[in-house]
Amino acid sequence: MQRNSISIYVQGIGSVGRNFLSILADEGKLISERTGMDIVLGGATDRTGSVIFSKPVAPADLLKAKLSGNILSLGKEVTSREMTENEGGILVDMSSASRDGSRELQMYLSAMKNGMDIVTANKSPLANHWKQIMDNASAGRRMVLYEATVAGGVPLFSLLGGSCGPSTVNEFRGIVSLTANFVLKQMREGKTFMDAVAEAQKRGIAETNFRDDTDGLDGARKTVILANALFGKNMTLKDIKTSGVSESTDAKGMDRYRLIAEITRSGNEVHAFSGLRNLDDGDYLLSLGEMSLGYEVNTSRNGRLRIHSVSDGPGETAAAVMNDVMLLAKEKFQGKC
Amino acid sequence: MQRNSISIYVQGIGSVGRNFLSILADEGKLISERTGMDIVLGGATDRTGSVIFSKPVAPADLLKAKLSGNILSLGKEVTSREMTENEGGILVDMSSASRDGSRELQMYLSAMKNGMDIVTANKSPLANHWKQIMDNASAGRRMVLYEATVAGGVPLFSLLGGSCGPSTVNEFRGIVSLTANFVLKQMREGKTFMDAVAEAQKRGIAETNFRDDTDGLDGARKTVILANALFGKNMTLKDIKTSGVSESTDAKGMDRYRLIAEITRSGNEVHAFSGLRNLDDGDYLLSLGEMSLGYEVNTSRNGRLRIHSVSDGPGETAAAVMNDVMLLAKEKFQGKC
Repeated sequence: MQRNSISIYVQGIGSVGRNFLSILADEGKLISERTGMDIVLGGATDRTGSVIFSKPVAPADLLKAKLSGNILSLGKEVTSREMTENEGGILVDMSSASRDGSRELQMYLSAMKNGMDIVTANKSPLANHWKQIMDNASAGRRMVLYEATVAGGVPLFSLLGGSCGPSTVNEFRGIVSLTANFVLKQMREGKTFMDAVAEAQKRGIAETNFRDDTDGLDGARKTVILANALFGKNMTLKDIKTSGVSESTDAKGMDRYRLIAEITRSGNEVHAFSGLRNLDDGDYLLSLGEMSLGYEVNTSRNGRLRIHSVSDGPGETAAAVMNDVMLLAKEKFQGKC
Repeated sequence: MQRNSISIYVQGIGSVGRNFLSILADEGKLISERTGMDIVLGGATDRTGSVIFSKPVAPADLLKAKLSGNILSLGKEVTSREMTENEGGILVDMSSASRDGSRELQMYLSAMKNGMDIVTANKSPLANHWKQIMDNASAGRRMVLYEATVAGGVPLFSLLGGSCGPSTVNEFRGIVSLTANFVLKQMREGKTFMDAVAEAQKRGIAETNFRDDTDGLDGARKTVILANALFGKNMTLKDIKTSGVSESTDAKGMDRYRLIAEITRSGNEVHAFSGLRNLDDGDYLLSLGEMSLGYEVNTSRNGRLRIHSVSDGPGETAAAVMNDVMLLAKEKFQGKC
C-alpha cells in the first residue's frame, strides 16, 4: 500500500535542528502512527548551502553528513529560492534570526506562494513582519505554526489553541527567555556580568552572540508575537520598549526581579510589557527554577492556568517544532478524501 | 450560503451541563469561527426524560426550560435509546456516573453503532469498560474524547495529544481530585470529617453523595483512565486499590499528605497508584492551593512539564467538555471535501 507522506525542508541545522533530526530518526515510527503520514526529508539548508534530495535521505544520514560538514553531497545543490519551490511540502525554519527578519520574510512569502506551509522556531520574521506573513497565509490558505518561538518547549500556542477552545486570553505573564534571567541570577550571587554570561554559555543556554538575549531583544520579540497571536494585535518590534541586563546592571537587592513578558487586556486596550519587573512575594513566576520557562494565563472560560518546564533546552524546543510539523501532517491527512 | 453545522445531544444538565450551555450561549459565535461549524442543540436528557428538538433550540432557551423543570416541552419526548440514533451527531455525556458504568456503556455502544461520536465528562464507563468502548470506537472509526474526566478543567489529554506529539509519557503524578484533598486539609486544620465535608459542599466542591470522592473511588477511576490513555494499558477499577479519607482518618501530622494519582513506567512495566502519599518537601504538588488541580508529567521528548489551575470548578470542567466538542467539530470540518 502506498503510504501518505509529506516532505519537509529543513532550514538551519544548529543545536535545535540537530535535536529535531534526532527526534525524527528515533521516533519516526511513532510520528507516522500518530499523524497517518510519513515525514520525509526533502532537502536541507545549512551554512554551506542548500540541497534537495533526489531520493529521501534518512534523518540519521543527514545528521552524519552535517557533522562531517558536507550535506551538499547528499543531493543536488540548489539556490535558497529553489528551496521554497516545493509544493505541498513544509518549510521548517530553525535558522538563526536575522536582525530585521526580512530574509526570512522573503523566504516565507515565496514558499507560501509556491504551496508550502511553514513551521518556524525563528522569532525575527514574526516579530517584524507579522501582519504581512499572516495576511499572505490567510489569503493563500497556507498554515504558519510557531510554537517554538516563545517559551522554548513549554506548550503555549498549541495549548491555548487545542485545549482552551472556547476561551479568550485576558492576561499573560511569563518567563519566556532563559538567558537574561539566568545571567541576572548569577549576578545576584556575586558574578560579574561577563562571568555570568560565560557560565550561561557553559550551560548551553547563551549563544556566542548573547547580546540579543541579555539586552532584552529576544524577550521583546517574544512579547510582540504573544500580543499578536493571543490578543489579536498587529504589533511590531517598534511598538515595544526593550530592556534587559548588562554590565551596568546593579543586581544587589534584585532578588525578586525577573525579565518577564506581560500582556493584559482591559476593554479594547491591550498593554504589552517586556522587561525587568520586581515581583511580589508568592508570585508564581518566582517559583520557577533557573532552567525553567513558564507562564500564567488568565482565560475567559478555562480558568487561570500555570505551566512550566523543569528544564528547557534545544531538545525541548526541537520537540515543539516537531509537534507543529505533526499538527500540519495530521491536518493534511484528514484533508485527504 | 449554507453553513456547516453539527448537532449535539446533551446528556445531563447538572452544574457542568448548565455551565456548558452558558458557554455555548455566550461564545457561540467565537466557537463557530474557530471550528468552521455551528454547534446546534439537537436534543437533551435530564432527570425528567429525553427530548429531541424538531427545530434547533437556543442554549439559553434550554437553560431557561431546565430551570423551570420542563425541558420536555421543547420538542418530542423520546426514549433514551432514541437519543443515540442521531447519525453524524455528538453525544455529550455530562450525566452522573453510574456505579459500574454499564448504563453509559450501552448508551455509547448504541450511539457509535448509529454513527455518533462521544464527548464525555463521565468517568465510570471509561474506568470500567475502557477496552470495549475504545475497541468499538476504533472498529467503527468513531471518536471518544474525555478531557473533562480527569483534573477538571486542567488541559491534560488534549495537551499531551496536541502539544507533545513526538513524546511518550514516562511518569505522571497529579492532584486530580479536589474533594478528598480539600477535606483532608480542613481536617488538618481541626475540623471533623463531617464538618469538613459540609464546608466542601458549601464551597461547591463536594456533591451531596460525597463518599465516592472522599473514599477515593473518584481518584481511582481517574487513575485507571490515565493509565489506559497515557500508558496504553487496559486496566479497570478491579486492578487498582482504592483509598481515601473518612471519619477514621487521623489528620494530625499529615501536613504533607495528599491524595494523588501516580503512574510510572519502567521498561515494559506500568505501576499505577491512587491514594494518600506523604510528599517530600519541595514537591511541586505541595505548591498547589486547596482549589487547584494539577500534575507533573515526564515526557520522553517534551521535557518535564508542570501545570495547574488556580481554581477549578464546574465552569472550567464545562470549558474542557466544550473544547472536546470543538476538536471534533474541527475534524469534521476538515474532513469535508
